[in-house]
Amino acid sequence: MNRQTILLATVFTLVLAAGCTNTGDPLPSWNEGPAKTSILDFVQRSTTPSSSDFVPENERIAVFDNDGTLWCEKPLYVQLLFAFDRIEALAPDHPEWATTQPFQAVLEDDHEALHAAGEHGLVELLMATHGGVTTEEFKKTVTAWMADAEHPRFARPFTELVYQPMLELLAYLRDHGFKTYIVSGGGMEFMRPMTEEVYGIPPEQVMGSSMNKVFEMREDGPVIVQQAAVGFINDKAGKPVGIQEFIGRRPTAAFGNSDGDLQMLQWTAAGDGARFMLLVRHTDEVREYAYDRDSSVGRLDQALIEAQRHGWTVVDMKKDWQVVFPHELVE
Amino acid sequence: MNRQTILLATVFTLVLAAGCTNTGDPLPSWNEGPAKTSILDFVQRSTTPSSSDFVPENERIAVFDNDGTLWCEKPLYVQLLFAFDRIEALAPDHPEWATTQPFQAVLEDDHEALHAAGEHGLVELLMATHGGVTTEEFKKTVTAWMADAEHPRFARPFTELVYQPMLELLAYLRDHGFKTYIVSGGGMEFMRPMTEEVYGIPPEQVMGSSMNKVFEMREDGPVIVQQAAVGFINDKAGKPVGIQEFIGRRPTAAFGNSDGDLQMLQWTAAGDGARFMLLVRHTDEVREYAYDRDSSVGRLDQALIEAQRHGWTVVDMKKDWQVVFPHELVE
Repeated sequence: MNRQTILLATVFTLVLAAGCTNTGDPLPSWNEGPAKTSILDFVQRSTTPSSSDFVPENERIAVFDNDGTLWCEKPLYVQLLFAFDRIEALAPDHPEWATTQPFQAVLEDDHEALHAAGEHGLVELLMATHGGVTTEEFKKTVTAWMADAEHPRFARPFTELVYQPMLELLAYLRDHGFKTYIVSGGGMEFMRPMTEEVYGIPPEQVMGSSMNKVFEMREDGPVIVQQAAVGFINDKAGKPVGIQEFIGRRPTAAFGNSDGDLQMLQWTAAGDGARFMLLVRHTDEVREYAYDRDSSVGRLDQALIEAQRHGWTVVDMKKDWQVVFPHELVE
Repeated sequence: MNRQTILLATVFTLVLAAGCTNTGDPLPSWNEGPAKTSILDFVQRSTTPSSSDFVPENERIAVFDNDGTLWCEKPLYVQLLFAFDRIEALAPDHPEWATTQPFQAVLEDDHEALHAAGEHGLVELLMATHGGVTTEEFKKTVTAWMADAEHPRFARPFTELVYQPMLELLAYLRDHGFKTYIVSGGGMEFMRPMTEEVYGIPPEQVMGSSMNKVFEMREDGPVIVQQAAVGFINDKAGKPVGIQEFIGRRPTAAFGNSDGDLQMLQWTAAGDGARFMLLVRHTDEVREYAYDRDSSVGRLDQALIEAQRHGWTVVDMKKDWQVVFPHELVE
């Protein structure tokens, strides 16, 4: 994590310096335009006591999707890349995987067979790599993997492939009394080991999909075991349900990038008073990826239609973001 | 809520005044003794940077059971009294209840038949009164009931029958950087409407048992519906599981009063570094109730054995609490 710590310190210094020369622009990595203006306008209206749109501080809840909204989700969800690496690491204990799909496909890097295994196959891979371990063991495994693993195209740790403009947005909202939450379709225990350091979001503000968990009293003390069984799927209509369960109040602002975020955005939009809904469009094949509406992962279709119909803020990554990743500030 | 607001304001003033004359005792309603000393000692050790027991602020998580730990749970759980009142209110729409158990038992105040219906009967009553409504409707119903309902013996709103020493303890911990959570076997949506005003604990720090919830897009907008089906039971071994799910880190301090809290206390105790575990014993039949180890509700047996074995703090309500309820400060 040393390299990352140095990078974060440098970025922090640069952001501070940028803040000074830019007469305190809280969003220096955002280009001027309607998206940036709408954010600044919303935060001002909702936090000015004399405004008719004022939101009391305890109700300032901002929810963020993670994959594709806060960090890069291409070429595959980071959690899937983790699962593939774990299959390889665990293979010596599972000789049967050499001839059993979908494990064989992972071990032989056989994309066609993996695709043929479909969603059912992916769930099998997740169960085999996430189930049957204690939450503390799983946290250690994820932390070690995250420190070593690199993105196949960018050759950097995944924790460096977070969106600089969104980091600034998170900090800006928190500076104005918003509580920032992650509401992801990904696994909560996979994200939690890194969210506090990378996003400034503590584990208790990270919700996601989860495995069934059970408490066990063992000889050397109590443990919580992740079973090889899906618990809650925090995606699509599951997101507002997860929000009600975890937070118990409706968010004031919601940020997403795909149809998996639609119901969370609708639920947020339907509340009283000031509201803010934002969608990120992936349009930049040079600095990141351009997949936008046409993608098997992070598909954006109905949510974009709804955003355009209701005037939600839509971010065009290529046009609206001066910087995509933090390392661009340093190099 | 007017009476309650006046009462709270008065209590607040008195507590402030007490703070001044008592040279800043943060726990004025606690009698001097080992329980009070152990709390003060733990908070000092865990929040002094030079102490070997220092806990960083982001890891200062304190979890509290609700029924019998923060408020009175006798003669029955408040949520059951709510369910009984709801059965009566809904009875005109359910003529069949007049001749169907366990509903008939509630309508006829027939304790024997109610007892005979057992746990299965109670679940039926909860489903009939908590299921099939939106979360927003349910919140309104609970809020209205809580403002009107009175305790059968003390003839006061239930929100006034919270323990003054525990209110002081919650505030004291928060003043020292602890995040305070409710971890209750009761329904989370039943508690949340009152916890922020009464305990200073916002809904997002209240976990409890829950009904299955589903998101529905209706003609006039999206809703979340509580189905008549049990979702998660946040009791006994469910408590540490709920804590891992909601908070994602192990608590530093845990407070309970019954065997339903045992696994939460064990999970807390098994962490590294400074730890604090406390059990409240109900021993005061004059000011509250004396039921302690012998009770069908809030049974305390194995947890007390464990507390004594491991030297956890045990509070004897009669001996350790100078004041039980806030109104005693006023009258």
